[in-house]
Amino acid sequence: MVKARKYVVKNLFQGFPKKSDYEVVETELPPLKHGEILVKTEWVSVDPYLRAYNYLTPAPYDQFSYQVGVILESKSAQYPVGKRIVSHKGWCDYYVLDTTVEPEFFDRIYLLPNMQGISPSVAIGAAGMPGITAYFGFLEVCKPKEGETVVVTGAAGAVGSLVGQIAKIKGCKVIGFAGSDAKVQWLEKELGFDKAFNYKTVDAYKALKEAAPKGVDCYFDNVGGEISSIIINQMNEYGRVAVCGSISAYNENPGNVPKASILQPAVVSKQLTISGFVVSRWTDRWAEGVTQLITWIKEGKLKAREHITEGFDNVFDAFVGMLNGENTGKAVVKF
Amino acid sequence: MVKARKYVVKNLFQGFPKKSDYEVVETELPPLKHGEILVKTEWVSVDPYLRAYNYLTPAPYDQFSYQVGVILESKSAQYPVGKRIVSHKGWCDYYVLDTTVEPEFFDRIYLLPNMQGISPSVAIGAAGMPGITAYFGFLEVCKPKEGETVVVTGAAGAVGSLVGQIAKIKGCKVIGFAGSDAKVQWLEKELGFDKAFNYKTVDAYKALKEAAPKGVDCYFDNVGGEISSIIINQMNEYGRVAVCGSISAYNENPGNVPKASILQPAVVSKQLTISGFVVSRWTDRWAEGVTQLITWIKEGKLKAREHITEGFDNVFDAFVGMLNGENTGKAVVKF
Repeated sequence: MVKARKYVVKNLFQGFPKKSDYEVVETELPPLKHGEILVKTEWVSVDPYLRAYNYLTPAPYDQFSYQVGVILESKSAQYPVGKRIVSHKGWCDYYVLDTTVEPEFFDRIYLLPNMQGISPSVAIGAAGMPGITAYFGFLEVCKPKEGETVVVTGAAGAVGSLVGQIAKIKGCKVIGFAGSDAKVQWLEKELGFDKAFNYKTVDAYKALKEAAPKGVDCYFDNVGGEISSIIINQMNEYGRVAVCGSISAYNENPGNVPKASILQPAVVSKQLTISGFVVSRWTDRWAEGVTQLITWIKEGKLKAREHITEGFDNVFDAFVGMLNGENTGKAVVKF
Repeated sequence: MVKARKYVVKNLFQGFPKKSDYEVVETELPPLKHGEILVKTEWVSVDPYLRAYNYLTPAPYDQFSYQVGVILESKSAQYPVGKRIVSHKGWCDYYVLDTTVEPEFFDRIYLLPNMQGISPSVAIGAAGMPGITAYFGFLEVCKPKEGETVVVTGAAGAVGSLVGQIAKIKGCKVIGFAGSDAKVQWLEKELGFDKAFNYKTVDAYKALKEAAPKGVDCYFDNVGGEISSIIINQMNEYGRVAVCGSISAYNENPGNVPKASILQPAVVSKQLTISGFVVSRWTDRWAEGVTQLITWIKEGKLKAREHITEGFDNVFDAFVGMLNGENTGKAVVKF
């Protein structure tokens, strides 16, 4: 018998998630049945959508998230002992999973890709859901052309930092907004952003006017809110906005959506297109994206920085820290 | 010598346009040169974009707008005396025009289409720029499918009233928001909208929840502002928004764009696409649109109601009345 612990969300969050919204539940895992595997978690992801999806999931629920684990026991030929898998089983230290169930998008599992020596944790970061989000969300929705000017908000986050680098690979001029001077330094000095700004201390309107005198062609929006209105108002004709998230609003209660300057005047006069997406749109191209991302990482074209917290007991703090913007790069927790 | 009068905009408007922002200038028109025609204005259009484009045009400028006139003299074989033309010469009673100049979009002129007995004024309304805007803007940007639910704001206006009717022709369920009970009656009783609401007196959120229990698939946005946020928050996955205008913001000064609940949370979670357009996008399909619109009008499928003001001296009042929503259908002025 294996004793397993998991985080259960008891309530809908009010504002920022509180530790008391969670309960750690201990269970004894049952013996495996045909098709099942026993997995020991090694890496767990904390991402903004864990906050955003809280309202979409009837509580109580097990805290989902992407994670990497190693198979300890197996009654599935496809998933042998010793192999690692990527699953969406979230914040738990051990779990049993039935590999024969036809999964919904989030419940898909797959063997850890060939990481070519890169840490397995990258399979839930730059070569996992955030990487796929950046890769297809930017390339398919923004459809950037060489020489165009691209703006990214949440630029030092898991997705934003990849979008900016992919834009550089594609020959674009890249401007990022992030939440600290240290992040700005990292974006400019390490990741090759042409320009980055601390949105907390600059006048975003003026900063962007100066940094993008010819206007903005593509905007990858992770945050929503007034800064997005400011950026969208500086876009060129036929500009494209990919809306990936709106982290600035995630800790507001529904029905209390923040207000910002309306987008319609710019959308009409510049004939802009603003498209939202969720990454499941590209489920059938997932492997293609993962392969490209790992290749770029190996080639040194893509830096996959991680912000690592250690320990099952600290996963909640890692989550709230990420929501507060304490991470630079992908926030993951090592169990 | 012909004495001609025209309205000249002296200033950038502050808030609502004022009569004192205009000056009526009288000139003597010169004798015609090769390629020129002398036109007597018969119908003049007043439209929201006359307000919106004020900031884009260095003042003073002649007040442009679409108009229909009859050719009194001609030194152009293509434009003979007695024919009518559609031009963008705006609020003037007579003008001389050089037909040999290669025109920009707005300066295009063309002979009045075969109106099949319909008033020539419809060539600057339901079978002119507003009609083309509704026809291509709705069909090409919203890409409605039979059975889908379509919402239109500014529904009793020149463009909105056509969009709703075209949506009905295409087999959609149509819900309109307009600014008076009389307009609501007209939309439901005369134009066949499935449901219409007076946005000034209803709770738009609740009204729409009830009228569109299965959610909204297409939204044709003429107004911007909070009502658009409310509608967009009730859209279905992969919903499409065509942004045609934002009349709610036109009388605000730039830099003072109104605020409304942000759109990004709905745009992401429902994977919406919001696209702005200007009608010049379909310049090369203009004739195709005009022909279809005139056909529908003749067949009785499309009602092209006009709100007619008479007299050169009253064109300013007609314009401000339209901005205030006093018109039902297309606001035109008969000279």
